[in-house]
Amino acid sequence: MDKDTTDIEKLKSMIRDIEFAMMTTVSQDGTLHARPMGNLDLSNFSGTLWFFSRSDSFKNHDIETDQHVNLAYANPKKQQYVSISGRAFVSFDKEKMKELWNPILKAWFPEGLDDPTISLIGVDVETAELWDSPPGAVVQLAGFVKSQLTGKPMDQKHNSRHVDLKSSMTKELH
Amino acid sequence: MDKDTTDIEKLKSMIRDIEFAMMTTVSQDGTLHARPMGNLDLSNFSGTLWFFSRSDSFKNHDIETDQHVNLAYANPKKQQYVSISGRAFVSFDKEKMKELWNPILKAWFPEGLDDPTISLIGVDVETAELWDSPPGAVVQLAGFVKSQLTGKPMDQKHNSRHVDLKSSMTKELH
Repeated sequence: MDKDTTDIEKLKSMIRDIEFAMMTTVSQDGTLHARPMGNLDLSNFSGTLWFFSRSDSFKNHDIETDQHVNLAYANPKKQQYVSISGRAFVSFDKEKMKELWNPILKAWFPEGLDDPTISLIGVDVETAELWDSPPGAVVQLAGFVKSQLTGKPMDQKHNSRHVDLKSSMTKELH
Repeated sequence: MDKDTTDIEKLKSMIRDIEFAMMTTVSQDGTLHARPMGNLDLSNFSGTLWFFSRSDSFKNHDIETDQHVNLAYANPKKQQYVSISGRAFVSFDKEKMKELWNPILKAWFPEGLDDPTISLIGVDVETAELWDSPPGAVVQLAGFVKSQLTGKPMDQKHNSRHVDLKSSMTKELH
């Protein structure tokens, strides 16, 4: 695997087990609003992340006027954090919905794919930033302690990996 | 306690135990970027949330051109999520820094308050949205199951509480 493939695998491994991402959109008045969005199966991930959403929701409305979104993933137990910047679009593609549907979604859409307001939000991932810690709270704590003892700052740049998905994806897919 | 005071206490109780918030800012090209920001003591919270930050960081730069920020708090274990919309500003108030400083911050600022790039970001909270579940995964699961059995959707509006901090704060403080 080259570096870019490794980066994408790393990104997938960090967001795979996180149930809800916080999706931030820009309202017409410029204010930023976020809400938890249930993550779907990543096995066919090829640069676009998908979420089910009601077509009459505020976020769908926001996306129609400003496509910019951020997806923030937090795994506090592992001290892992991911920020994804991308462009969002609304889709009513029933084939895609069938591919992505799972029974848990019945809690929000009891009528399933027959719900007249059901829609998909696709997010074309442009860049991703990852903050990773050695697994385990003890190791993380040791990092703090070591930094305090030596007087050397924790290198935030070292712990944050910047992944440019547009170029990485091109290499991965072609 | 009236309803607004209860709302603010609820907000504080939900974000108090979360170590890092994801702060989303707007870059000059319109893209949205988030990063984990260490939460500080909330005991003197009166409508402004504070974070230490380097004055030469991208987020400080973003805030100078667009004050809008979102703070997303995730507590996956409790299935609690909070979205705060506000306006951010950069401060170099040393008295405020002394009040907020704690030794953990040495990991990022080994020189402490003598660091020439140390600054504060204050976020004036304008609105907050809270998603709360009954505590414990079993109860949450029961919620899903019940919804699937009855065919009635989980009322997202019921689970999301919208708090207007500007009016609530006014009542709390005066």
